[in-house]
Amino acid sequence: MAFDLPRRLMAEALGTGILVATVVGSGIMAQRLTDDTALALLGNTLPTGAILVVLIAILGPLSGAHFNPVVTLAFALRRDMAASVALAYAAAQIAGGIAGTLLAHVMFYLPIWQAAQTVRTGSGQWLAEAVAAFGLVFTILAGLRFRSDAIPWLVGLYITAAYWFTASTSFANPAVAIARAFTDTFSGIRPVDVPGFILAEFLGAVLALALAGWLLAEPKSIRQMKAAE
Amino acid sequence: MAFDLPRRLMAEALGTGILVATVVGSGIMAQRLTDDTALALLGNTLPTGAILVVLIAILGPLSGAHFNPVVTLAFALRRDMAASVALAYAAAQIAGGIAGTLLAHVMFYLPIWQAAQTVRTGSGQWLAEAVAAFGLVFTILAGLRFRSDAIPWLVGLYITAAYWFTASTSFANPAVAIARAFTDTFSGIRPVDVPGFILAEFLGAVLALALAGWLLAEPKSIRQMKAAE
Amino acid sequence: MAFDLPRRLMAEALGTGILVATVVGSGIMAQRLTDDTALALLGNTLPTGAILVVLIAILGPLSGAHFNPVVTLAFALRRDMAASVALAYAAAQIAGGIAGTLLAHVMFYLPIWQAAQTVRTGSGQWLAEAVAAFGLVFTILAGLRFRSDAIPWLVGLYITAAYWFTASTSFANPAVAIARAFTDTFSGIRPVDVPGFILAEFLGAVLALALAGWLLAEPKSIRQMKAAE
Amino acid sequence: MAFDLPRRLMAEALGTGILVATVVGSGIMAQRLTDDTALALLGNTLPTGAILVVLIAILGPLSGAHFNPVVTLAFALRRDMAASVALAYAAAQIAGGIAGTLLAHVMFYLPIWQAAQTVRTGSGQWLAEAVAAFGLVFTILAGLRFRSDAIPWLVGLYITAAYWFTASTSFANPAVAIARAFTDTFSGIRPVDVPGFILAEFLGAVLALALAGWLLAEPKSIRQMKAAE
Repeated sequence: MAFDLPRRLMAEALGTGILVATVVGSGIMAQRLTDDTALALLGNTLPTGAILVVLIAILGPLSGAHFNPVVTLAFALRRDMAASVALAYAAAQIAGGIAGTLLAHVMFYLPIWQAAQTVRTGSGQWLAEAVAAFGLVFTILAGLRFRSDAIPWLVGLYITAAYWFTASTSFANPAVAIARAFTDTFSGIRPVDVPGFILAEFLGAVLALALAGWLLAEPKSIRQMKAAE
Repeated sequence: MAFDLPRRLMAEALGTGILVATVVGSGIMAQRLTDDTALALLGNTLPTGAILVVLIAILGPLSGAHFNPVVTLAFALRRDMAASVALAYAAAQIAGGIAGTLLAHVMFYLPIWQAAQTVRTGSGQWLAEAVAAFGLVFTILAGLRFRSDAIPWLVGLYITAAYWFTASTSFANPAVAIARAFTDTFSGIRPVDVPGFILAEFLGAVLALALAGWLLAEPKSIRQMKAAE
Repeated sequence: MAFDLPRRLMAEALGTGILVATVVGSGIMAQRLTDDTALALLGNTLPTGAILVVLIAILGPLSGAHFNPVVTLAFALRRDMAASVALAYAAAQIAGGIAGTLLAHVMFYLPIWQAAQTVRTGSGQWLAEAVAAFGLVFTILAGLRFRSDAIPWLVGLYITAAYWFTASTSFANPAVAIARAFTDTFSGIRPVDVPGFILAEFLGAVLALALAGWLLAEPKSIRQMKAAE
Repeated sequence: MAFDLPRRLMAEALGTGILVATVVGSGIMAQRLTDDTALALLGNTLPTGAILVVLIAILGPLSGAHFNPVVTLAFALRRDMAASVALAYAAAQIAGGIAGTLLAHVMFYLPIWQAAQTVRTGSGQWLAEAVAAFGLVFTILAGLRFRSDAIPWLVGLYITAAYWFTASTSFANPAVAIARAFTDTFSGIRPVDVPGFILAEFLGAVLALALAGWLLAEPKSIRQMKAAE
């Protein structure tokens, strides 16, 4: 990538920050305005899907727009980026994400530092997170393979769907999970439940990477043609 | 197509599985969160439309992204694929779809194997399914003819609309109908009602194929120009 | 246009029919599922916007995808089509639209022939229809001028907005207004109120054509460059 | 730009007018149809996001489609336009915006001239407006840099998200803030609260401009290559 590391890290922190501010902020807004939980989830889903399209489109050319340690891990495992850079990315994502939570609290006149009390644990939730991260990483890898220009839209739409079809409302992102442990509002997750989510997300991501390695590999006939050139 | 059959079948099974997991899972989520059935249907519609765009965009280059036996039938009737491959596609779609239902049940802590009790039968429902499948297949055929890059969006938007304008909420897909017979939740359909739906869907698809054969055929003047070359 | 007139008329009738079936059908569906009128309007809006994108994308290359006599009038006034063809278009649109209403009734087990009783009249409603048609025709003309590939999306999004910002929920289409006079459901309009709507829509369309003639004309400098060639 | 100033100003006035008519009109419509405030905000959000895509796509080639004095300021500070033209733009935006409010009132049979009574003040609201305008201006600048064709979509989606994640529902626009002071309906803002909003919006815009100056600047290696040519 042509941009220097400080700017790439800034892009990761900024993007994850705005993403988390959107998840947490829209959750607070929705919860204040309605008693219907499905409507609140809709008021949480649409802004999240929309901001993802925007952030990936405008920051993708800078840093790749991962905003997510399991996505960064997938690229590191594919040897698209060095381990040291991947670690710096993850740190920027986590720091940016927490800042996003705090920003939402200040805007909505809530205590800045909070600890979530929402219980999110159990095998169904963990399976849901593995599925969510599997789908997200596979969408990105297949998108890069076949439709790289559409990736902002594909990720935004994938998360829009995953909010509703996974039992966990699809965190699918360790940095976001950590950031959401700092808010005791609609989108919060009890700190003690975060490790289970993160583990499941890494599992899902690795599974997606493995499947993509087989499913998306170039057909043999094309490889032979290229070799013959 | 350049990809080998096992991978094409995997793409069909995976895609249909995630599609059904989205339909069934978002229906469960929505039903749990609200008492308003229109809101539940909205929480069922938006994820389905969104995931269709994603799945067709990322799996289309692999298998064509049919995820639907009547779509596969339409291509087989157009002689775009062999009958044996079409049958394998349909089997992969049905197996993937059922797996999608089971996955949704496990994520939401529901009994894995269920039989739906929701009655969906009668002439209005059958007409609705014929209309739904007619519109879906015609959209795909006309999309291929004029805007092949936009097909993921067109199918996602078509189903978004068809959820609401057809009286049956638009199954439009025998594999999905079969898979939804295995869930006694929001999106379920009584097993005994499935054959009526499937028959109507095939009728609608064949009608679309016939109409497309006339309406989308190349204008005579262009055919003559080509012949003259 | 390269396609023969019968196929162009079929495309206009089919497109207007599916459009009206969506408007009327989704209105019936929404009204049955909720008591909240805003939610019902949302359940009416999203399918209409979505199907417009689809129909214009797949039928535009055939007939131009007007589906609307005031759009056809605008093109006729610009001398893009003969008056006789324009009249045939309008007839196909009206016939297709009415068939769409009837189709919705049959799917939802309602009496096939109905007369609407919903009062939609008064200066605010007429102004709203003039604004709605003005915006629609201007969007199409400016879209053709600057972004012709995006027109399906622009029209779908415009109508999505206009459903809510115009006091009349934006019929903006005489063929649709006539077809909606035949349904006494959510989207109906009392037959006696239709002429006022149609008159306002034509006024708005003509105003848009006039404004576009000035605002979208090629800048003088470019015209001079072309003349100098 | 190739278009003469009168037409550019007309495009700014027309676009801001329709934008405000949508914000105010859809707010009135939503408030009349439901008691659920989240649903009303959704009925306000979706039309606003949708019309932004349309207006920027069709008027962007004419005037740049700012519709917003802080966007115009950003371009003036970048020396993309003369100060005198920027002032004329702002005047056209403000006049168009107020006309949009009046139009909405007439369509909905409300008193034409109103003064809003909705209190929108305090540090959280001001921070929210600064964040909203920061995000909007940064989205536009980064969009211009990397994905100029997608800007209509990016801005529409950004505002869709910002309606929910900022505590102020994201005015992000001095011309719109002034216009909304003239309506005592869902989207109104007490005139005395407007200056605080405007100040915060300018602050956010300038911050975005500063960040973009660093973050989006061409990587050194590319600048050197160009210099070496």
